[in-house]
Amino acid sequence: MRSRRCSTKPACRRASDLRNQICQTSRDNGRGRVELSHAIAIVGLGKIARDQHLPTLAASDKLHLAGIVSGHARDEDVPVAATITELKAQVPDLAAVSLCTPPMARTPLIEEALGLGLDVMVEKPPAATVSVAERYSGMARDAGRALYLTWHSREASAVEPAAQWLAGRSLHRMSIAWKEDVRVWHPGQEWIWEPGIGVFDPGVNALSILTRLLPGTELHAATLKYPADREAPIMADLTMAHGKTAIEAAFSFDQRGPQTWTMTLETDDGVAELREGGGRLFIDDAEVAVPEGTEYGRLYARFADMIGTGAIDADLSPFRLVADAFMLGRHERVGAFRWDD
Amino acid sequence: MRSRRCSTKPACRRASDLRNQICQTSRDNGRGRVELSHAIAIVGLGKIARDQHLPTLAASDKLHLAGIVSGHARDEDVPVAATITELKAQVPDLAAVSLCTPPMARTPLIEEALGLGLDVMVEKPPAATVSVAERYSGMARDAGRALYLTWHSREASAVEPAAQWLAGRSLHRMSIAWKEDVRVWHPGQEWIWEPGIGVFDPGVNALSILTRLLPGTELHAATLKYPADREAPIMADLTMAHGKTAIEAAFSFDQRGPQTWTMTLETDDGVAELREGGGRLFIDDAEVAVPEGTEYGRLYARFADMIGTGAIDADLSPFRLVADAFMLGRHERVGAFRWDD
Repeated sequence: MRSRRCSTKPACRRASDLRNQICQTSRDNGRGRVELSHAIAIVGLGKIARDQHLPTLAASDKLHLAGIVSGHARDEDVPVAATITELKAQVPDLAAVSLCTPPMARTPLIEEALGLGLDVMVEKPPAATVSVAERYSGMARDAGRALYLTWHSREASAVEPAAQWLAGRSLHRMSIAWKEDVRVWHPGQEWIWEPGIGVFDPGVNALSILTRLLPGTELHAATLKYPADREAPIMADLTMAHGKTAIEAAFSFDQRGPQTWTMTLETDDGVAELREGGGRLFIDDAEVAVPEGTEYGRLYARFADMIGTGAIDADLSPFRLVADAFMLGRHERVGAFRWDD
Repeated sequence: MRSRRCSTKPACRRASDLRNQICQTSRDNGRGRVELSHAIAIVGLGKIARDQHLPTLAASDKLHLAGIVSGHARDEDVPVAATITELKAQVPDLAAVSLCTPPMARTPLIEEALGLGLDVMVEKPPAATVSVAERYSGMARDAGRALYLTWHSREASAVEPAAQWLAGRSLHRMSIAWKEDVRVWHPGQEWIWEPGIGVFDPGVNALSILTRLLPGTELHAATLKYPADREAPIMADLTMAHGKTAIEAAFSFDQRGPQTWTMTLETDDGVAELREGGGRLFIDDAEVAVPEGTEYGRLYARFADMIGTGAIDADLSPFRLVADAFMLGRHERVGAFRWDD
């Protein structure tokens, strides 16, 4: 539909900031060839879409925002439709969708997108239940379309350097502290207290890094603390192991003051600490340089390469550990939760 | 090791009853050819092994009990060893093992068996967690061995007839009542109250039939009732759906008086009721004939055919629905549990 050059590609924070940009479907790559930019739509224009997906797409060379599927989006600079089917009718060259709706009820959206011949990228966690999440790969395979079930924290800048550092060492012990204040990071997002979510919304980010560093990690025990008036945990303590190596994780959604997203790896040859959700790496307390770039920048770069290939990247291991924690979790009740506490 | 004919093959109830039997490794099939009987060992000589596995093997033409791996078995008529490796050294023609230990900590047993070149059959549920259960297929594939993660209730006599009856009909609604007294069926088996088990020990049997009849069933909500002094549910109510068809299940481990294992299928053309755990089928209240044979007889007949082929039958869909129920389950506490109540 569009083939003009972008003038600027700021990592802006709101869709409305994109209004005066011109997005491209092709651009000169500087080596005399023209690269295609794929038309992609965001489905579900909530906080994560506005904070991360829209600015990342605005900065992308390989993808451009061609529409939004939302029941309540208004005044955007791209076509908005109530359904994927309606948007595809308005934007015939639409190649892909990125699902940013909450994890419940995504199956019909994925079915609809695949049925329209679109490739699909999915925000974490992929579904409300493991049974549903397990079906997506087969659906995409049957449709011959690409599917990317994303784990954005795996793309944090320090994760790959940490994996490389760990590769030559023997791990003695690992501890994870993932503690944030839900009132700050998810203000008023009541869906986050749906059963199966709660503190595992951030917690699964830690588990996605963990399963990148130590595939095959098993969960052996868990204690889950539920607010008196909510049906999802506000705190969780997990006892896990990778082979004979003990892994402890403490998740909190009720952390006032300093916020902590840290993983500590004690090895036979030094201690590594991933801080700030995998964004920074410290070896024996000295910070080491990590690659530039953002989590969502790398997610979308990877998805752009998958479009049209039928590739499927659907690792459910972080989500299975969440299911395991609920399955083995000993429940405790704590005080009622208030957003304005 | 042994190649004599069996004189009798009663479906006896205890290993000690097998003492005077002679088991075969080959027999004339009546058409002038000799069929092999595979040497198999039971790992874990608990209630289910004595009640079902040993008598089934005693009655099998295709398999014979060649040993038992147990830390406490005594006075059996076959070799007993503390580990699979030790038993294999005593019984070099051992072809397979059948794991009857509780679902926790089976991974090292499966690794050990596969490492010895043995095919593996596993009692339900396959593991304590979905993460662990998901690994078994890959382990067997890498080892080139057969793996059968069994769901014995799927082999109940009325399940296939019910599936065939349902195939030509439109299902309006399904309800499951799976209510038994744990004190009667699992006397003193404290492991059944380990986190993740409880009433789902029988409940997953219902879910294994359900997922045979209606693959792709999704769980939408659950209420789990935990005894005040136990960390596994004694009752569970599940709200599920297959497409737009509602499926309700009520599980109890605290059912006094009549015991109920019933599934009711209301269709556009009559009502089917599977009773007695899938053993009997009623269409519009009239009982219909179902095939002879036992659940475990069919399980072992199937496994015997898999031995040596590298085949893998590892459907985890019943277990994933259990994980989903724990994940989405709203918890309630009920009175303390007593075995002698």
